[in-house]
Formats: sequence, structure tokens, C-alpha cells
Amino acid sequence: MPEQDPPTGPVVVETTHSPHARLRPVPLTDVRIADRFWEPRRAINREQTLAAQYRHLEETGRIDNFRRAAGKVDKPFQGLYPFNDSDVYKWLEAAAWSLPEYPDPGMLRMIETTISEIADAQEPDGYLNTYFTFERAPERWTNLKDKHELYCAGHLIQAAIAHHRVTGSDRLLCVGRRFADHICETFGREVEGKRPGTPGHEEIEMALVELYRTTGDQRYFDQARYFIDSRGHGLIGGGEYHQDHRPVREQERMTGHAVRHVYLCSGIADVVAESGEPALRGALDNLWANMTRKQLYVSGGIGSRHDGEAFGRDYELPNERSYTETCAAIGSVMWSWRMGQLDGHPRYADVMETTLYNAVLPGLSLDGGTYFYENPLADDGTHRRQPWFGCACCPPNVARMLASLPGYFYSVDKEKPLVHVHLYAEGEAFVTLPDGRTAHIIQHTDYPWGGIVEVTVNVEGPFGIGLRVPDWCEEGARILINGNADPEPYLPGDYQFENEAWRPGARIMLILPLRPRLVECHPHVAENTGKVALMRGPLLYCFEETDNPGFDLRDATVNRAAVWRESYRKELLGGIVTLTVDAEVTPPSEAWEDRLYRTVPVAGALEPRPAFLTAIPYYAWANREPGRMAVWMRAR
Amino acid sequence: MPEQDPPTGPVVVETTHSPHARLRPVPLTDVRIADRFWEPRRAINREQTLAAQYRHLEETGRIDNFRRAAGKVDKPFQGLYPFNDSDVYKWLEAAAWSLPEYPDPGMLRMIETTISEIADAQEPDGYLNTYFTFERAPERWTNLKDKHELYCAGHLIQAAIAHHRVTGSDRLLCVGRRFADHICETFGREVEGKRPGTPGHEEIEMALVELYRTTGDQRYFDQARYFIDSRGHGLIGGGEYHQDHRPVREQERMTGHAVRHVYLCSGIADVVAESGEPALRGALDNLWANMTRKQLYVSGGIGSRHDGEAFGRDYELPNERSYTETCAAIGSVMWSWRMGQLDGHPRYADVMETTLYNAVLPGLSLDGGTYFYENPLADDGTHRRQPWFGCACCPPNVARMLASLPGYFYSVDKEKPLVHVHLYAEGEAFVTLPDGRTAHIIQHTDYPWGGIVEVTVNVEGPFGIGLRVPDWCEEGARILINGNADPEPYLPGDYQFENEAWRPGARIMLILPLRPRLVECHPHVAENTGKVALMRGPLLYCFEETDNPGFDLRDATVNRAAVWRESYRKELLGGIVTLTVDAEVTPPSEAWEDRLYRTVPVAGALEPRPAFLTAIPYYAWANREPGRMAVWMRAR
Repeated sequence: MPEQDPPTGPVVVETTHSPHARLRPVPLTDVRIADRFWEPRRAINREQTLAAQYRHLEETGRIDNFRRAAGKVDKPFQGLYPFNDSDVYKWLEAAAWSLPEYPDPGMLRMIETTISEIADAQEPDGYLNTYFTFERAPERWTNLKDKHELYCAGHLIQAAIAHHRVTGSDRLLCVGRRFADHICETFGREVEGKRPGTPGHEEIEMALVELYRTTGDQRYFDQARYFIDSRGHGLIGGGEYHQDHRPVREQERMTGHAVRHVYLCSGIADVVAESGEPALRGALDNLWANMTRKQLYVSGGIGSRHDGEAFGRDYELPNERSYTETCAAIGSVMWSWRMGQLDGHPRYADVMETTLYNAVLPGLSLDGGTYFYENPLADDGTHRRQPWFGCACCPPNVARMLASLPGYFYSVDKEKPLVHVHLYAEGEAFVTLPDGRTAHIIQHTDYPWGGIVEVTVNVEGPFGIGLRVPDWCEEGARILINGNADPEPYLPGDYQFENEAWRPGARIMLILPLRPRLVECHPHVAENTGKVALMRGPLLYCFEETDNPGFDLRDATVNRAAVWRESYRKELLGGIVTLTVDAEVTPPSEAWEDRLYRTVPVAGALEPRPAFLTAIPYYAWANREPGRMAVWMRAR
Repeated sequence: MPEQDPPTGPVVVETTHSPHARLRPVPLTDVRIADRFWEPRRAINREQTLAAQYRHLEETGRIDNFRRAAGKVDKPFQGLYPFNDSDVYKWLEAAAWSLPEYPDPGMLRMIETTISEIADAQEPDGYLNTYFTFERAPERWTNLKDKHELYCAGHLIQAAIAHHRVTGSDRLLCVGRRFADHICETFGREVEGKRPGTPGHEEIEMALVELYRTTGDQRYFDQARYFIDSRGHGLIGGGEYHQDHRPVREQERMTGHAVRHVYLCSGIADVVAESGEPALRGALDNLWANMTRKQLYVSGGIGSRHDGEAFGRDYELPNERSYTETCAAIGSVMWSWRMGQLDGHPRYADVMETTLYNAVLPGLSLDGGTYFYENPLADDGTHRRQPWFGCACCPPNVARMLASLPGYFYSVDKEKPLVHVHLYAEGEAFVTLPDGRTAHIIQHTDYPWGGIVEVTVNVEGPFGIGLRVPDWCEEGARILINGNADPEPYLPGDYQFENEAWRPGARIMLILPLRPRLVECHPHVAENTGKVALMRGPLLYCFEETDNPGFDLRDATVNRAAVWRESYRKELLGGIVTLTVDAEVTPPSEAWEDRLYRTVPVAGALEPRPAFLTAIPYYAWANREPGRMAVWMRAR
């Protein structure tokens, strides 16, 4: 943040765009989270994780790469990948989003230093990628399929927009625009004298649409749409892995590299928000249906295959061998958010919430210092979080997701004074309504540990609020308005709206039944036949060996009718509700000792013996001593 | 085969080596298979497959690469991989093994042409690898971890030995020896003035030991042992993938690239046969136990992971996503064979037989023209055999396995006149006993379709014969000697020996109960819980959609007590026994249509309806119209 241009408060985001989205986001600068679930994690993120990541960026040469490109240092390019710049940009975006809550002088210095290094490394023509400098300069734009130049550009632009939004400064935005201008001049249809092409790793599509929204410059939107339109026409020689096997409007399944595909879908949704094109929207609906009905883990994680970090076949959802990259879950949240903005249906926030709690959050240790790249749903104790990776996409991605989390809580209808509440947590928001009024909304709740959400609205005149009844709430929620109970339960499937003349201080109480519940899986998922998973509210649970000593978790059997005991344990894993139950353990008989297969009938197991099972939230696994972990348990 | 040196008959293999192996192989030239199971496939292999593969070798430039190295053609190196030479060598080995049964002039020409091209490409110092010629000559031996030079050398030597054994010619053997000499001079301990190193892809260990056995030159054995000893000491920077993560004697689990590890184990077994070293033997026993008890598919296939074509964790055996490379199964057969030679225990032939029928044979189409690289145990109809691969290791490997199959049938005790019969098929063998006599053994059987094996032995004087009672024969086999039934059933776990003074024409009848049987899997294999596989004798069965129309195979449930009907269907898939049964189909209810997960209890399925299931041998799958296939079926 340059000293001559200090931030004076939240910068209002333009809302004149996105004519085809039903909802408008409530910017994160207008939302405050003050709960005991997210806020301690977000505090660690901005106060410790970001600084630690910055040190990694320096120590691994990722910032030196910019200095090298600017001619300030004489070193070889550092790092294994041509997309190392993107880690710096993602960190910068995370740091920018954290500024309103943490205007720490040290953090400001890191941000401004980084921006200076980036700006100095930009080429006169606007091009900016530290890998393709000096001896590799002739290789620029020669391999769109594999080399991630457009991907890196997208992250630069997103960081620039974030920095502009929270500081008002256009220092980095100018850099991003210059590069975007260069890209717009370079890529396009041959008849326009440009080079045909599409990114091998999607990301820039989202960035360009947001740059259009931020600047009003139509070229950026057109460029994003061009990149989407040009995919699947053999321009870069990509395949399913790159979602380049067929035109986007004909894609019906989530395929290939999972992060790529959800980033693409996020970009498509952004284009649809501006254009309303039915064919693109239809493709999104098909892809969304495929992902959620055939390829989604119970955690919300996606991309089951190690091989290619990829989506697999329908119903291919192994547990111990699930890949479920943290970045893919983050991309899924971004996509879900955009789908929800398009039409306001709560099904998207349902998936977004599940994914945030159970597929994004496990990617970070409770102390904020180590990360999962892969998130298996079962383990033998050998999968542990790491402080950094050679391919370091996940750590700064988790950081920017946590930093920007308040931005995922509320939306407002584009025409009516109607606010949608997507997520629940203690806190407040100041929502600017389409008619210019501001509604002050206060959430008082212990969600996700408790199921009661008390919402106070300070606004006068016509106003409506939509409270999501989550899809896990199959028996329905109860709602009390100013103390008066509505006689009918509210069921999942739509936000609940209250439209009347509001008095300041009106209170709504939403009561979500937070009982432990067992979940079954579609019978075509081969590994989950006869098994159950345990959930409570939005949280997926798992079983760790350290809480369940003396037997092998694979040998436990849960009784579907058994009653689970809940207890809040303040001292454990940052404070969690544990779930316990009486169950049975039936280890394999000794006859199995020396073999894998036996002719039926076989004495498969010894007599069952009683066991006591303890479950913890899945997001908190692998924060204690290593041991076996399981989500899906045999059931009878 | 040079015209001046025509083969005059089987060349006797030296038997003075391998003091620490209990058994000696009966060379394939002394064995004849004349059954209706293997023989038609072997005839297609030698009469059609080998010629087709030769065309592929020419068309893909693999033989041109040798011409290029010799300066005969001016082309760039063709093919994707630095190990393309090995495909030529493996084909040559297969062609050589086929010569005794198929001395076709065209085949002889192909062999002799190929040998000439290879010989002409050899460097003056003995080095021979067409990838590392001209501009890449300076890269020779610079990357043992990844570049497969020693692997290719091993295949050259094996081809040379095969060619020498069946023709008596030393034309290719001289080439192989010169390269082996070059390797012996190059690699070794620093104190000897040599370069430390070990192969990144094992293979040459087996070849060098066999070269020692063939030539009597101790240096080759020492070199093989050196390569095994030097592994796991950080010489080439390999990891688990290369079995270079720890010294061989400390390895306890099959890890990394599956083909590599079973080739390594085969080489270790060869060294143990010569040295008898207990520590090496101990490692083999541990590795064997790990593979067969924790990492073996019911088909005998190994290497479950796509990622790295690798072994996974213990009990990690997915079905639709099994990798189970054809070459890995072939390597497993080679290892099992060697283990059996070491101590004569039939457990090794049990695994070898299962693997041959159910993991090697599925790699080849019934018409001998297309191949599987991967062999999944379930499929949605999209996995189909291909005529060739960019990485074409599997096709010539299948060809050499089929061509050399007779060599896996019999062994003879190194001291006593005692013959072990490992495999059963109509045919005969002339076995040279340690005392110089020859026993003529005739098998009369319809195995594996029928379970009766009639063995006639023409020999006089002391003689013993061991007939393996396969491990699937849990209820035991019956034996009749010259018409007299032994009152007790013979159980699996040891060969059955008959030691007495034999009269020419003595007859033994072995009766193996070939009933269909259901097999259960160790409960820690996540995907097979509650499921069964179907076997009959050594053959694994599977279900194909084409035989089971009108329902989804994933929805079928087999009754464990149901009676299976057997019928031999001559017209089907080259003649097979099909197995049929009445079962139930319970498709998922409509409630599952739009979701993957539901809170328990859920109406998981509609009322079951009756269904008629038809199973075929797994080796024959994917030879008709594409459709879903399953090996493991839900059972109640």
C-alpha cells in the first residue's frame, strides 16, 4: 500500500455488471466473522500462516525469480515448475484479502515489496512470466498446453483485483491490466490477425471476467469468452486431461485434471453471469449434475485419481486411495459460489458448505503450519501434512480461501431488498440493498457445534431474508420470528424468505436439528457397499486410531440403530464435539493370516467383541500421533 | 539360423550349475504340449502373432534404429522411449523359442535379418543401444536410473541365450557376450577402478546369471551379484519406485514399479540358486510372503496402482481401477518358477499357474492380434485390447511367455530320479534323469476343462514323480496307480511322490475335483467386502454384459449356497466351460437417481427380481462386443 494512498475503508465493488446473475455478492469487507470455529483459524492464517508462506516464497527463490527477471540478481530460475510465479500471486491475493482485518505494518511491507518486484519484472510489452525470460524468452507462448503462462497471468490479475478492492490502489492492477492487454492483443481469431489458442490450465477466464467487472473494459470479457469458445477445437493438442477433448458446450462429464475443470467451470459461470448464454448454462448444469451425482466424495472432495490428479469414472471413489486435492476442493467452492449467484438456488451453497468444512479445511493443520495436497478418506497413518511442496499450489490457495471466506457468506438480490444467507457463523454484515439502504445483519450462533442461529436485522421498510435450510437437515428446520414459532418445519431445497415491513431489531431464530446421523452411499460406489459415514450438521466425522486403540478400525462394525453420544471437548483439537458409540469388532480369523483368498464358506472373522468407538470431525484428522484413520465404517 | 549351421536337435542345457537349487528345469525343447487349451493359442502365437509383431517392429522403426546405428540408414531415432531396442530383443527371444516347433523359412529369415541388424549396430567396445548413438553417444551410462541401458542389455543377452539354446548358433550369443564383457569392465566397485552403479530397471541380473550358466564364465555371475548388492546404496538416486530405497537384503515389501520388482526378485532367485546365500533367500521369502498375502489379485495379477505402474499398500486391490500390467504378471511367473526351482515347494507353481491362466493370458486377444497392457478386474466396457503400444513392452513379452511355456511344465531333482510336474496339459516330455536315463512322460488330460490327468511313465528302475495337487483343491485329489485307488485323498501343499521300481508304461491317474467354487477375499481389501469371485479349477471366471443383458452387473447378488451349472460350449470364445446360476438383481431405487449420499435408513434398492447369471473364464473377456464386466459379485 503506497503511503500516499492509504485505504479509507472498504472499496465498493461495482454492481452494474452481471445482468444474468440473480444475486450480487456482499463484499468481504462488509462482513465480519467473530465465531469460535472459523475466526481462530482465520486469525492464525493472517497472523502466522501468511508470514510463514512468504518466507517459503523467499527461501525457495520464487520472489528471487522476479528479481532475476528484472535484472536485479544473477541467478538461475529457481523451482521445478514454469508456474512458480502463480504461488507468489496467490499468496499476494490472500495477503490482500487479509488486510482489512490485519493491517499489520510487516504484512503491508511484504505486500508492497512483492508488488514492486513483480512490477519491475514486467516486460515492456506487458508480458510477465519469470520462467520465460533470458534464455527461455524465445519459448514464450510456444506451449500453451503445458506451460501455464495464461494460468499465471490469471492469478496475477486476481491478486491485482483483490489488492485494488481492499486498498483502492491501482499499483498492481496496472501491471495486471498491461499483461491482460498484451494477452488480448495476442490471442484470438486468425481473421482478426491474432493467434488462436486456449489455456492448457484454466484460470485466466475467471480473472478476465472479474477484470471486466472491475474496469468496465469489454475487451477482457470478450477475451475470456474467446478462451472458453476456443477450447476443444484442437488448437493446443490437449485431451481430456485439459478439458480440450471437445468443445465446452458439448462437455457432459467432469474429466481430466480436477483443478483445471472446476476452474474452467468457474470461468464459464462468470461468462454466463454476463452473457446469459443458454448453451453455456446448459453445459454447466450437466457438468454440475455429473460432479455432484457421480463424482463427489462425501467430504465434498473431488478428483479421485492420483494418476493425473484427475476425475475418474462415474462412481469411482476409492477412500484410502482418494486424491481429492485441496486445490480442487477450493476450485469447487469457487464454482459452487458462482452457480449460486446465477440463480440463487441453495443446492450450490449446500455443496459449498460441505466442501469448505470437510474438503478445504482438512488441507491445513490446526496450527496453520502444514498442508495436505491430497486428502484421502482413509489412511494407515503414513499420510501427513507437509510445510511446503515443490508444486506449492495448495498452501497459498488455502490461505486465500480462508482470507476471503467472509465474501462467501451473503448475497443480495439484484433487484429486490432480499438478502441470502449462505453460511452460518457468529458475526455481522452491512448489506447495501439495491435501493441504497443498508441492512445490518447480526448472526448469533455457535454453528457448526450448535444448531441454533439467531439472526437480528436492523433495517426499516421492505426487506426479505433467505436462510438456507441445509440439505442434511432432512427432517426440516424450525423458525421463530420475533419469538413466534412457525407451525410447519422448513425443509431443505430452498432458502426461506420473509417479506414484510421490517422493524429495526427484528429477530429470526433458525433451529437446525444437529443430531449425529449415519450416511449411506450409492450402491455403485464399489468400496462403500455395506458401509456408513458419520456426520453431524455440516461436519463429516472420522475415526482415528489414537482415539480407538486396541483394534483395527477396518474390523469395527457399527450398528445402524445405535445411539451416538455427543460431547463438546474444549481441550481436544482446538475444541470439538466428539461422537461416541458402542460397537463391535470382528478381526479376521487366523485362517486369514497367510492368505488373501479362500473358498466359501470361510470363517471370516472371530466372534465379535464389544468396542467403544470415538469419532472426531474429519477436518481435524492427522493433528496428533500418526495412526489409522477411516471415514466409512462397516455397518449392520 | 545360418545355413552352414542348421539345428540338429535340442541343445542340452548345462546342468552343472545352480548347486543351491533343488530342481533342474526340463528344457522346453524336451517338452511337447498338444492340448486344446494352450496349443491353439501357441500355434497362433508362432504362426501369426510373431509375424505381426515383426511388422510392428519394422513399421515403428524399431529395427531401423539398429540400421541407423550401423550407418545404413539416415533417419532420426524412432519411438518414444530409450528402451525401444528391448522390444526387438524380446521378440527375438520369443521367435527363437518358437523355432523348434515352427522352423518356418520366413520366421528364420526374420530372425537372421534381425540378428544381422543387431550385430552390425554394435560398437567396437561392445556397447549396444541404438538410442545412445551419434548425438546422444556422450549420454551413455550417464543416467542409469531412468534410461534403461542395462535393461536393454539384459533382454539382448536373454534373446542370445534362447537363440543359442534352440539353434546351437553363437551368432547372437557373441554379440551378447561382448556387451556383457563391456558391462563387466565398466561397472563395479571403485576400488577395482570401475564405476559404481545399479540398473534403474532390473532385468540384466537374470540375464547375467543365465549367461554364466551357459558359458561357465564366473564374471557374469559376479556382475549380477554386484548389481544386486549395489542396489539401495544411493548410487543412482532411485527410490521405492526403482527398489533403490534400501539394500535388497533389507527389503520386506513389494514396492514401486511392479515389473521392476518381480524382475529383480527373479534375478535374486537366480543368484541364490548359485550362491545359496541365506540373507538373500530370506529377503526373497519376505517379499514373496508380502506379495502373495497382501498384494496379489485373485487373478494372480500384481501391481494395483496406475500411478507408477506400481505396487500399492497392503490390501490395496481395487478392481475397476486395477493396473495389473501384463508384463508384471509375466515377471511374477518368472519369479515363481525360480522360487519353485530353489526348494521344490508347490506353492510357487500354484501362484504360477493362477497367474498364467488369469493374469498373463487375458493380455492377448483370442485371435492373437491385440493386447492388454492393463488388466482390470471390472470394467464399464471401455477398456479394449490394442494392436500395439507406444511403450510396447507387453506384446513381445506375452509372445515369449507363450513360446517358452513348455519350459515351465517339468523339473527334475538335481540328485534323485524324481520328476516334478508343475503344470497339466495334454502332451509329453523326455526327461533326462540325473543318472543319465531318460523318462518318457505322457500326460493325457483335458485340463483345465476336465480334472482328470492320466500320466503314463516309460522308464525302468528307480523313479519318482511328483504331481502337484493345486491349492484350490482344498477337498483333496484322488490318485489311482495302475488302476488301484489310494484310499486317502491327497491334499494341497506338497507334490505327491511315488517312489518305487517303475515298469515301463506305469499309469497314474490324478483326479482333481473341478467344481465351480466361490472365493472370498481378506476382509481388509476394501472393495471386496461382502463379495465373491467364481473359480473352476485354475480358471478365474467373470461376468460380461453380453451374456447378462437387461440388468447392471453391479446390482446382481449371488447366493453363496446356489448350485452353478457347467456346460462346455464349443462354439463360444474358442471353446469354454460356462457357468450359470439363478441369482437376484436389486437395482438402486429411484431415490438414488440424483444423489450419491443419503441419511440412513434409506430404501437402497427396489425389491429384488430374479436373474440368470452366466460366467465365462476371465482370460476370454473383451473378445466380443464391449460391455460391463465384473469379477467380484455381491453375495448373500
